[in-house]
Amino acid sequence: MKAAVGIQMRSGNRMADQLREVQLQRDYLAHAEGSVLVSFGRTRVLCTASIELHVPSFLRGRGQGWITAEYGMLPRATAQRTRREAALRHQSGRTYEIQRLIGRSLRQAVDLKRLKEITILVDCDVIEADGGTRAAAITGGCVALTDALQVAVGQNLTHGDPFLGLVAAVSVGMVEGTALLDMDYSEDCRAQTDMNVVMTAAGEFVELQGSAEEKPFGRAELENMLALATPGIAGLIELQGRALATPRKGAA
Amino acid sequence: MKAAVGIQMRSGNRMADQLREVQLQRDYLAHAEGSVLVSFGRTRVLCTASIELHVPSFLRGRGQGWITAEYGMLPRATAQRTRREAALRHQSGRTYEIQRLIGRSLRQAVDLKRLKEITILVDCDVIEADGGTRAAAITGGCVALTDALQVAVGQNLTHGDPFLGLVAAVSVGMVEGTALLDMDYSEDCRAQTDMNVVMTAAGEFVELQGSAEEKPFGRAELENMLALATPGIAGLIELQGRALATPRKGAA
Amino acid sequence: MKAAVGIQMRSGNRMADQLREVQLQRDYLAHAEGSVLVSFGRTRVLCTASIELHVPSFLRGRGQGWITAEYGMLPRATAQRTRREAALRHQSGRTYEIQRLIGRSLRQAVDLKRLKEITILVDCDVIEADGGTRAAAITGGCVALTDALQVAVGQNLTHGDPFLGLVAAVSVGMVEGTALLDMDYSEDCRAQTDMNVVMTAAGEFVELQGSAEEKPFGRAELENMLALATPGIAGLIELQGRALATPRKGAA
Amino acid sequence: MKAAVGIQMRSGNRMADQLREVQLQRDYLAHAEGSVLVSFGRTRVLCTASIELHVPSFLRGRGQGWITAEYGMLPRATAQRTRREAALRHQSGRTYEIQRLIGRSLRQAVDLKRLKEITILVDCDVIEADGGTRAAAITGGCVALTDALQVAVGQNLTHGDPFLGLVAAVSVGMVEGTALLDMDYSEDCRAQTDMNVVMTAAGEFVELQGSAEEKPFGRAELENMLALATPGIAGLIELQGRALATPRKGAA
Amino acid sequence: MKAAVGIQMRSGNRMADQLREVQLQRDYLAHAEGSVLVSFGRTRVLCTASIELHVPSFLRGRGQGWITAEYGMLPRATAQRTRREAALRHQSGRTYEIQRLIGRSLRQAVDLKRLKEITILVDCDVIEADGGTRAAAITGGCVALTDALQVAVGQNLTHGDPFLGLVAAVSVGMVEGTALLDMDYSEDCRAQTDMNVVMTAAGEFVELQGSAEEKPFGRAELENMLALATPGIAGLIELQGRALATPRKGAA
Amino acid sequence: MKAAVGIQMRSGNRMADQLREVQLQRDYLAHAEGSVLVSFGRTRVLCTASIELHVPSFLRGRGQGWITAEYGMLPRATAQRTRREAALRHQSGRTYEIQRLIGRSLRQAVDLKRLKEITILVDCDVIEADGGTRAAAITGGCVALTDALQVAVGQNLTHGDPFLGLVAAVSVGMVEGTALLDMDYSEDCRAQTDMNVVMTAAGEFVELQGSAEEKPFGRAELENMLALATPGIAGLIELQGRALATPRKGAA
Repeated sequence: MKAAVGIQMRSGNRMADQLREVQLQRDYLAHAEGSVLVSFGRTRVLCTASIELHVPSFLRGRGQGWITAEYGMLPRATAQRTRREAALRHQSGRTYEIQRLIGRSLRQAVDLKRLKEITILVDCDVIEADGGTRAAAITGGCVALTDALQVAVGQNLTHGDPFLGLVAAVSVGMVEGTALLDMDYSEDCRAQTDMNVVMTAAGEFVELQGSAEEKPFGRAELENMLALATPGIAGLIELQGRALATPRKGAA
Repeated sequence: MKAAVGIQMRSGNRMADQLREVQLQRDYLAHAEGSVLVSFGRTRVLCTASIELHVPSFLRGRGQGWITAEYGMLPRATAQRTRREAALRHQSGRTYEIQRLIGRSLRQAVDLKRLKEITILVDCDVIEADGGTRAAAITGGCVALTDALQVAVGQNLTHGDPFLGLVAAVSVGMVEGTALLDMDYSEDCRAQTDMNVVMTAAGEFVELQGSAEEKPFGRAELENMLALATPGIAGLIELQGRALATPRKGAA
Repeated sequence: MKAAVGIQMRSGNRMADQLREVQLQRDYLAHAEGSVLVSFGRTRVLCTASIELHVPSFLRGRGQGWITAEYGMLPRATAQRTRREAALRHQSGRTYEIQRLIGRSLRQAVDLKRLKEITILVDCDVIEADGGTRAAAITGGCVALTDALQVAVGQNLTHGDPFLGLVAAVSVGMVEGTALLDMDYSEDCRAQTDMNVVMTAAGEFVELQGSAEEKPFGRAELENMLALATPGIAGLIELQGRALATPRKGAA
Repeated sequence: MKAAVGIQMRSGNRMADQLREVQLQRDYLAHAEGSVLVSFGRTRVLCTASIELHVPSFLRGRGQGWITAEYGMLPRATAQRTRREAALRHQSGRTYEIQRLIGRSLRQAVDLKRLKEITILVDCDVIEADGGTRAAAITGGCVALTDALQVAVGQNLTHGDPFLGLVAAVSVGMVEGTALLDMDYSEDCRAQTDMNVVMTAAGEFVELQGSAEEKPFGRAELENMLALATPGIAGLIELQGRALATPRKGAA
Repeated sequence: MKAAVGIQMRSGNRMADQLREVQLQRDYLAHAEGSVLVSFGRTRVLCTASIELHVPSFLRGRGQGWITAEYGMLPRATAQRTRREAALRHQSGRTYEIQRLIGRSLRQAVDLKRLKEITILVDCDVIEADGGTRAAAITGGCVALTDALQVAVGQNLTHGDPFLGLVAAVSVGMVEGTALLDMDYSEDCRAQTDMNVVMTAAGEFVELQGSAEEKPFGRAELENMLALATPGIAGLIELQGRALATPRKGAA
Repeated sequence: MKAAVGIQMRSGNRMADQLREVQLQRDYLAHAEGSVLVSFGRTRVLCTASIELHVPSFLRGRGQGWITAEYGMLPRATAQRTRREAALRHQSGRTYEIQRLIGRSLRQAVDLKRLKEITILVDCDVIEADGGTRAAAITGGCVALTDALQVAVGQNLTHGDPFLGLVAAVSVGMVEGTALLDMDYSEDCRAQTDMNVVMTAAGEFVELQGSAEEKPFGRAELENMLALATPGIAGLIELQGRALATPRKGAA
């Protein structure tokens, strides 16, 4: 039976529907309005949320705020060194694609009309990459964003509480015919299909991005992957909630 | 009844499940190995496929080929002029995101192992934009690619026939509670959810990209949108087939 | 007789002093203040004129307007694909040279003092290139500009009518000792001298750019080339006038 | 009489058909294969010619050489400081236009087939700008190029002597109805027409670039300007010849 | 007494000649040939050393290797967010200055002739910045480099052992008349003079960079600062040695 | 005796503690507020000082001014042509490092609080490079800056006289065990240590940048080099004073 084969192959004896060990280390930095070092197994991403007292030009004068994201990878986050984008004077298409996904996802956690003319910029920098960096970035970034929103509320930069609810993300994929939750890099390389799912606490979709890698996928495979993603994200949102439950140590 | 409202609102009395008028003008240019001017209503995209006798460095020496895409918009394709990316010396994140989607989609139409060390580069340039440019680009680009593949076969640049089958794409979305097929720009602006679906002739998924715009979407809405996309894409693939049925006039 | 030799060589049995078939398709796009698809034989250029409500910084506060142009080529406009300037993050010297020529030429059609602080930006994008793209761009661009000027008049963005008169352009060259009007690409490649002439309806010079390609040219050759350019441009201006004679269909 | 008015206005009591004081200081630098500090009045341009042992990719393997030019202005060459192009990470359209003109002009002085696969790169850097920098650059650059060609001959980098003959350049223009030779900056600002003429010793045209500045110009004005340019350039070529008549002091 | 004043002001009751708490966490990443998270108090820098199987073009064919460095700061390493250099498509002058200093310093730890044609690239990325990032980068980078050198020896990429000895760096400065070792950010802001000293285990200078900030400094102040730097660096080198004393856990 | 060896080797029979011939040609350009062509032997740098009526954004509204510098090299300043930074669309790390050094050095000559909100930008462009270009740039740039400061005083752009005193710079190094003052390029290439020293007329340090080239250097070598630099700079400041002693010829 294929599924059994898939299960047996996962490193650390992980089950097909099991997340890697997830950690959310809040207030990792001294100054940021929100900062979280998130790890999904060996994948580690530093997420910081910064309040800036202006909005992009397309929103100027509209009396609302904005949430956006930037994404980067340290050169040696990967097994082979990746060239530094700053040195190349150019961000890759992959970087743009990912930071747009993170930005769209995090905007769903916030009522932008309840922000005054401020931007909260969430930086997601990958310290080490072992698959699932965009999912980790969204999951950790949402915690950093939540902290920053509370700072904004405290500094009277909002109209009431703009927080709508947590969002989290996970990757799912088909590997040798088996749907797997939260693929690591070695699984990602072998996947026929790769899907990133972003959901709310209510189990609704924020983003759904599925790509055939090796061959197209059918409705049944879509169902199998979504069946893993839904409880996976619920688990992540529970961890986010726990991380946010403790009072902040002084704050920025 | 909500659906009725949606239907009545569409320009040209279009039904919720109806494509705009689609045209595929093959051999639009004299020299390209494949060239198609595709229109989805007022949206017009010039798709050209060019054979280049090399592969990207990451494939060098692997004995296979590559398919990639580039996307651009003429400055006045849009109601307000968009600044020229060449003049800004920078492509936007949106451009990168779209051209990566087109490239991944078109690669599913080809057995890359059956290409010798060549690249087929599909340029998709938007002449006029009225919603759905990425879907039109994939649909028209696949026709141009098919023509170029036959040129490659004829020039002994392949091992047998590398063509796996047509792919096409369409946008679907939720507008005021109704699922709509092939949204134009005015509908796109009002959509709560926007989804691009890329499928094969066999009705399998190549890419699935859904984004909550105004608010998250549930499983029922996902089902409704997919229920429109599947026959919509089948219709597009039929049109692609018809366009390809006539012999080429001389060819490049 | 040399001229006879030249005449016999032209494709489509064209005479040495004969223009290719010229078309000026007005209102090619829905939204632009002016838009013209111009063709000189197989050379096709989409010219659009956009009104922008500001002037470059060097004119700010001077109470006058500005006309400028940008030029681009779609990658597969040429027989061999040209790399996309946006992807190279750099416009070529040829592009800069041409767009400066177009801008200077079109400014001679307008009394800039009669424009309020607006810029009319003329984009010239080459869909297919078969020689003479800069001449086609100026000739088509002037029609698009004329339409946009009337929109500006209608929107009270001018002091009276700023239009001074049409300008048009043509290439002339010496090919195997014969002066030829409106060279196509195959002729251009063989030319000893290449000259672009821009003139007004009154037959005066706006721009004159002659370059020795193979060897320097004398006064007699200059005379021969100008003797072709003058009636050639008169013919183009007549075609511009005819294209502009019909009322616009709704306008932007 | 118009001409008389023009004559009276020129600084230093210069006649309408009179060049400014021209100096050609050869071997200005220790290492360059050719180097000339040229001055046309206060306009000073440092021209250097460097031999490089390769050709651009489009000429590789063709068994011939290439001549090209680069142009720059020191930031304070102008009355108001111009921003440094290197700091802007971008060359202006004006720079591209000028260096293409210089390159085309200097290539007419050389039989490229008689060069082995080398490039002679002529750098023209404006130390001080008082009008006519492109004419000075071509005139001085041709002297530096001639010296570098002799170095190339001596190093066996040619097939025989590739030198075809000197070229020189001058600006002419119409100022208040009078044709003036070799305009300085204050004249250039007031010119209705500005023309740059590049000619050979035989009095043939290499480049002819006339631009209407204030209003279009007619055939009579073209004649008047060419009537000044021809003897002006003859005078410059005589000065070039004199500068080259003395043996080099050691050479590079 | 001035020194006493200085001592009382330092955070954490630090003495004028006392380093902050220094940590060197080796093998911070799974894949890099060397990786160290170094902290000088709150300043934290991730240093990785990567072996690349080529040398810069200026060394090609010389039969030796190269050591170089790149430096970056995560956007929120600082109290106010710094814009991401990759997004600006440009590295700052400060970044260039620092990475050149790191590269020159680390090259003094290695006999480049004993490397085969490889480059060891040391990336120094600042996670949090509280003064002294370049000193921390050199100190931590040298440990990562040492590990990578041993990997290179093990992979037969060297001629014998190319390691010459450890180098370390510290900042010293004059604050209100007192020389202070290892300034944090608040001290750095108030410093009249800022000096970075890089030394070998033998107490010899590798780099010495002193800058007057508020006013020029005399010989006496230079002496005072060097008197702190020498034992400070000796202490750092002792810590480097201790960090390197334990065997690596598996290695890359 | 080592020193004797060193002395014998210097070109032009120069002594180890002897400057090359230094010239400071003031008002080299017609328009700049200050302009000096400085030569240290064959090294020639054109230094211009331009007053701009604004400050960088980080100083806006602070009621003070700023001094900054830019540095460039003409392509053929060097024995082998260096590629033009403007054409590369990128300044090198070396350029950034040097212009930051010049800027910091020149700011020590001025009380920035006594400048109104203006910037004096000092451009240092190397005409010919034979070692010591940064020292020459600082030494000549300070003279140009002094002239520009007097222009600023005359135009009421200051609060009183902001000039604090001259600064000058020189390179010193260890060549084959001997300390040498003001190294030329051939000496620089052979130096074990290279140090740039910037000092005030009072003999205090403004900048001190020593780099081990071949091997680390000890305290004794540091002393020897400083012992040469101090009188060397005193000599340069005397020459600066003499150049500034004559009244300006008309000024900008």
